[in-house]
Amino acid sequence: MEIVSQNKCFGGVQTVYSHPSETCGVDMTFAVFMPPQARKQSVPLLWYLSGLTCNHENAMTKGGFQRYAAEHGLAVVFPDTSPRGEGVSDDNAYDLGQGAGFYVNATRAPWKPHFQMYDYIVNELREKLQEALPINGRHGITGHSMGGHGALTIALRNPSLYESVSAFAPIANPTQSDWGRKQLSAYLGDDEASWASYDASILLNDLGWKGDILIDQGADDQFLDLLRPEALTDVIAKKRQPAMIRMQDGYDHSYFFVSSFAEDHVAWHAERLHGNGN
Amino acid sequence: MEIVSQNKCFGGVQTVYSHPSETCGVDMTFAVFMPPQARKQSVPLLWYLSGLTCNHENAMTKGGFQRYAAEHGLAVVFPDTSPRGEGVSDDNAYDLGQGAGFYVNATRAPWKPHFQMYDYIVNELREKLQEALPINGRHGITGHSMGGHGALTIALRNPSLYESVSAFAPIANPTQSDWGRKQLSAYLGDDEASWASYDASILLNDLGWKGDILIDQGADDQFLDLLRPEALTDVIAKKRQPAMIRMQDGYDHSYFFVSSFAEDHVAWHAERLHGNGN
Repeated sequence: MEIVSQNKCFGGVQTVYSHPSETCGVDMTFAVFMPPQARKQSVPLLWYLSGLTCNHENAMTKGGFQRYAAEHGLAVVFPDTSPRGEGVSDDNAYDLGQGAGFYVNATRAPWKPHFQMYDYIVNELREKLQEALPINGRHGITGHSMGGHGALTIALRNPSLYESVSAFAPIANPTQSDWGRKQLSAYLGDDEASWASYDASILLNDLGWKGDILIDQGADDQFLDLLRPEALTDVIAKKRQPAMIRMQDGYDHSYFFVSSFAEDHVAWHAERLHGNGN
Repeated sequence: MEIVSQNKCFGGVQTVYSHPSETCGVDMTFAVFMPPQARKQSVPLLWYLSGLTCNHENAMTKGGFQRYAAEHGLAVVFPDTSPRGEGVSDDNAYDLGQGAGFYVNATRAPWKPHFQMYDYIVNELREKLQEALPINGRHGITGHSMGGHGALTIALRNPSLYESVSAFAPIANPTQSDWGRKQLSAYLGDDEASWASYDASILLNDLGWKGDILIDQGADDQFLDLLRPEALTDVIAKKRQPAMIRMQDGYDHSYFFVSSFAEDHVAWHAERLHGNGN
């Protein structure tokens, strides 16, 4: 892991790293905030998965998570949203290819060689961070939009790896949305049965979740029709899934929405990651 | 004033406006955060002046001021750092011309026609905001780097217009720095006597300040030699000027530094702007 930049922030350290990824077959960049508590003890890690067009930097600079992570003694990792660079396939559209990995393992050309974001997040990057940083083995996961989809689907499929899950305006039902059908078709092929393991509403219906779930959604989100929160809330209601879904009056899809509720999500994860007695 | 964008944020509203500026002879863009309290009453206004290469957007998205402004009931304005666009003079260097107005009224070609940032901030934009928004007439001013220089020099020259002043890593003595001599020479000409009214250390020595001053400076700031905080602290010590200067261990010149201490500055201005009893 090579340090790209490092800045003191709220008493902790915000670092950007680059590393060669076996899973993605290319160098990957990510950002990690280590809180001041990590100088003396290992700490839990909160994953923040970003949305379409974003990289490791957007939430790191605009989300405002560091203050709350420093307060609660959590590390936070901000991975990139896809492999990038020359030799990595791309598409002219903003919502396919580089910047739009959708947290899946692609099985189709031309995406298969590098677009393995699911395995990268669940396995390779997790192991790398556990080895390199004072992480205590307790992980929570959240994300925004495409990253909310990533957080929910990854947690639901791996309940032994994550203690807590939340999301900001997630793509809640991609198999039934133009934010999903196009990408799942491209990355996985036209057999829709293969898409189900990347749809939070289907997974929650089939697998449930061991704990409760926190979802914030802006009521004035300009992408509500694409996000389909109603699919997820239907399952939550039908299955009596413990959850708090907050439809936030007047908020849109931007980082102004994310930053406004970052404190609540960090506190919520901290409560579940620290267990009894902080 | 035309609305460019508007987002709900921390219960308040973050708006970007564009307007034709008589002072700068070109359309200018700025951002204003109005806290939730402004729906029911007029509120004080905190000015945040940005540094070299920045525009209205950097601190609006990366500074994290909105949370604290919402808590303390302050409006915050983020002006641009210069006039911009076709027909506005520029320079290939990052530190002269567009993005580098230095908050002066230029008297020399080719800058004079548009680079009138001092008058724009002190007079035109102030009046426009007072007319258009529920601002109660009490103003504080802060800024970062070149914007810290702007905040200090503007407040010191206009004590009747500002109740409070602070700065993050200000260019404290531009008449003796490569961040200053080049620009003051270009904008004002080679008569160094004309530069003194744009140098915070000289102005504080000559005029003093009616209240106290808050300065945060990163001890690991990569630009310390250019900022020359020692010139300002010398005057503060010599004149027994009430002030709090904090040399912050480990912090650099970035927005990670600014955001780490944004809360303290907003609280400090709020205390002075609200007067007794909030």
